[in-house]
Amino acid sequence: MSVKFAVLGHGVVGSGVVELFYKNKKSIEKRAGTEMDIKYILDLRDFPDSPYKDKFTKDFNDILNDDEVTSVAECMGGVEPAFTFVKSCLEKGKSVSTSNKELVAEKGDILLQTAKEHNCNFFFEASVGGAIPIIRPLHRCLAANDITKVAGILNGTTNFILTKMYNENMPFADALSLAQELGYAEKDPTADIEGHDACRKICIISSLVFGKHVYPKSVYTKGISQVELCDVAAADVLGYAIKLVAMVTKLSDGKILPCVMPTLVSYDNIMSGVNDVFNAVLVYGDGVDQTMFYGRGAGKLPTASAVLGDVIETAKSHGTVVSQTWEASSDDSFVEGIDSYKSRWYFRVPADSKLDGVEVYNHDDGLSYITVNEMTFAEAKAKAAALGALAYMPVME
Amino acid sequence: MSVKFAVLGHGVVGSGVVELFYKNKKSIEKRAGTEMDIKYILDLRDFPDSPYKDKFTKDFNDILNDDEVTSVAECMGGVEPAFTFVKSCLEKGKSVSTSNKELVAEKGDILLQTAKEHNCNFFFEASVGGAIPIIRPLHRCLAANDITKVAGILNGTTNFILTKMYNENMPFADALSLAQELGYAEKDPTADIEGHDACRKICIISSLVFGKHVYPKSVYTKGISQVELCDVAAADVLGYAIKLVAMVTKLSDGKILPCVMPTLVSYDNIMSGVNDVFNAVLVYGDGVDQTMFYGRGAGKLPTASAVLGDVIETAKSHGTVVSQTWEASSDDSFVEGIDSYKSRWYFRVPADSKLDGVEVYNHDDGLSYITVNEMTFAEAKAKAAALGALAYMPVME
Repeated sequence: MSVKFAVLGHGVVGSGVVELFYKNKKSIEKRAGTEMDIKYILDLRDFPDSPYKDKFTKDFNDILNDDEVTSVAECMGGVEPAFTFVKSCLEKGKSVSTSNKELVAEKGDILLQTAKEHNCNFFFEASVGGAIPIIRPLHRCLAANDITKVAGILNGTTNFILTKMYNENMPFADALSLAQELGYAEKDPTADIEGHDACRKICIISSLVFGKHVYPKSVYTKGISQVELCDVAAADVLGYAIKLVAMVTKLSDGKILPCVMPTLVSYDNIMSGVNDVFNAVLVYGDGVDQTMFYGRGAGKLPTASAVLGDVIETAKSHGTVVSQTWEASSDDSFVEGIDSYKSRWYFRVPADSKLDGVEVYNHDDGLSYITVNEMTFAEAKAKAAALGALAYMPVME
Repeated sequence: MSVKFAVLGHGVVGSGVVELFYKNKKSIEKRAGTEMDIKYILDLRDFPDSPYKDKFTKDFNDILNDDEVTSVAECMGGVEPAFTFVKSCLEKGKSVSTSNKELVAEKGDILLQTAKEHNCNFFFEASVGGAIPIIRPLHRCLAANDITKVAGILNGTTNFILTKMYNENMPFADALSLAQELGYAEKDPTADIEGHDACRKICIISSLVFGKHVYPKSVYTKGISQVELCDVAAADVLGYAIKLVAMVTKLSDGKILPCVMPTLVSYDNIMSGVNDVFNAVLVYGDGVDQTMFYGRGAGKLPTASAVLGDVIETAKSHGTVVSQTWEASSDDSFVEGIDSYKSRWYFRVPADSKLDGVEVYNHDDGLSYITVNEMTFAEAKAKAAALGALAYMPVME
């Protein structure tokens, strides 16, 4: 048997999939236990200089209607036409591996169900944490656990900016410009710096772990644009690094509480040492206690590594459904609102604020930086208003 | 269909498997897609107060000859009788999941081959890194990569001791006594502190990644008993933490070089922040660049989590062979000797040593602590002799 697959999209990720596949074809085939080859590459552009130019097509139907193609790697991005293409492939029994987090966050439930109905697989390892193996470990290796919390640094751009602010005392705006120069941030960086990208990824993780589709609109999301150098410096003195943390917690009533917020992470927590464009996901369960997965969250070959890992799995598991499904959700009543989110908190307040029972760092800039014991988000918000706080963020030990 | 499995051994790990399984039975069955139950627990001792006392047997043949048992969790430890029991089970087509690193390091090739011949699986996620998902990610998720290096902190006892030396300036002997008091080290701690345990684990990883069985006797292994507080303090000044690192590197001629040595790990390397009894494995590949897996390397429930993850996988993959096999090796000619191991190095030398072109930290204890540029192990050994060095260790950035 030989497995033929198609690559949809020849942008950064798609071209990486083609490159990495041909570089390691021999060892990939050994691990897959079968010969493998790319039969089509779908892209509307021309690539006359590509060594694989004979494989290019502009017509998706060439792929859809070729029964020899049993596996498809979707690397186009965006919800449409990716959704239509992927769904059509699954309905024909072709397994699909995707790096497209928007697609999974918005349509994962439908696509998993479609795959199941047509005895094939929908894999999305590359959609969260780039190169980091996290999806398969979460639902396979940790399957014996009651998972109580997942917390991650899921966006490389914001982590790069925060690392520059921390290591080089570089103001937010300058760090953002540098990230744009280096190609880590887009021209319109909103999706990264306002936390929307991290939000999509914690939605995918939440859906997978807790079995019900969680939509981005149900998740409280705050980005890093209001984090200032004085916060980063004060957090350091107090023993913390500021990270954009995407988190989901299982509550005692069975509901879940996902959120995305800049967070003070203790130096005793291994996640505080995750720097630059690297991502990490920390998983808490009753068996494992805690386990962390770390690596490059984006980039051509890292993301291609994850997509190809999935493609190899489609070859090995052809004819059986091994991907996890989760339920569609008609409402978000199982998602708890942010107001009841419990945490310790950090406040930046005027130095003359009346404070008691808190850890205080008074700085000569006329401000105080304090951490306080556990309270809800609603209580912290009220306290921030009462204190005239200029900023407040949760604290994670 | 309902899957019945047996647990061999009711010690720390075996009893953890039973406990965690019944705690999370409902969600485990959901993830496995089938009903599951433990039919037998094998132990020579009596457990009259166990809620599962009806499941105990002292006769292995009860399990071997019961065709209803399709999956077995081996948690006895040691090579015999574990090897005989596991091999008999596989020959009857019963899949086996084990936490037994000695067994895998000594007999992995034979057992994987036996499983393949009898259309069942031999899984060993728990044998390396305890709770940490590492085996399955290595051979499934990272299957598209040319893996060039794996470096890990694979022994919790030594990492606990080194952390105490670092954080609390506690001498080696005191830290070892404390580890014994806390149950982290055995009465005879040789296997841990001299690196033999870490050696077994890097053998398993090397065999899996490079496809040929690597025996512990082929691997240069040095433990931490000669690391002194002055080394730990000097390394800190130079920007490093001392860790017992088990490593395997792929060389340009296709050979591999596995070794275990106390190593100075740069503070810029995420692995330097892995403390206490935690383990971590850092994997380098041409696709992923680098990715790290972190968690508890031992303990009742963490190890049980990994064993049960495998047992669930045996249920899901019943009738297909998904476990990786590797070749038996009649000699170790594909394993390069330690003499050609290349690294930067650290030396502890008398302060009057003649030094040039090196990073030096002169301490008022009359000694100098230096790091030097890349050279081979053989060269470093000769240099150490020439300098009258009191200690030398590799340096990892």
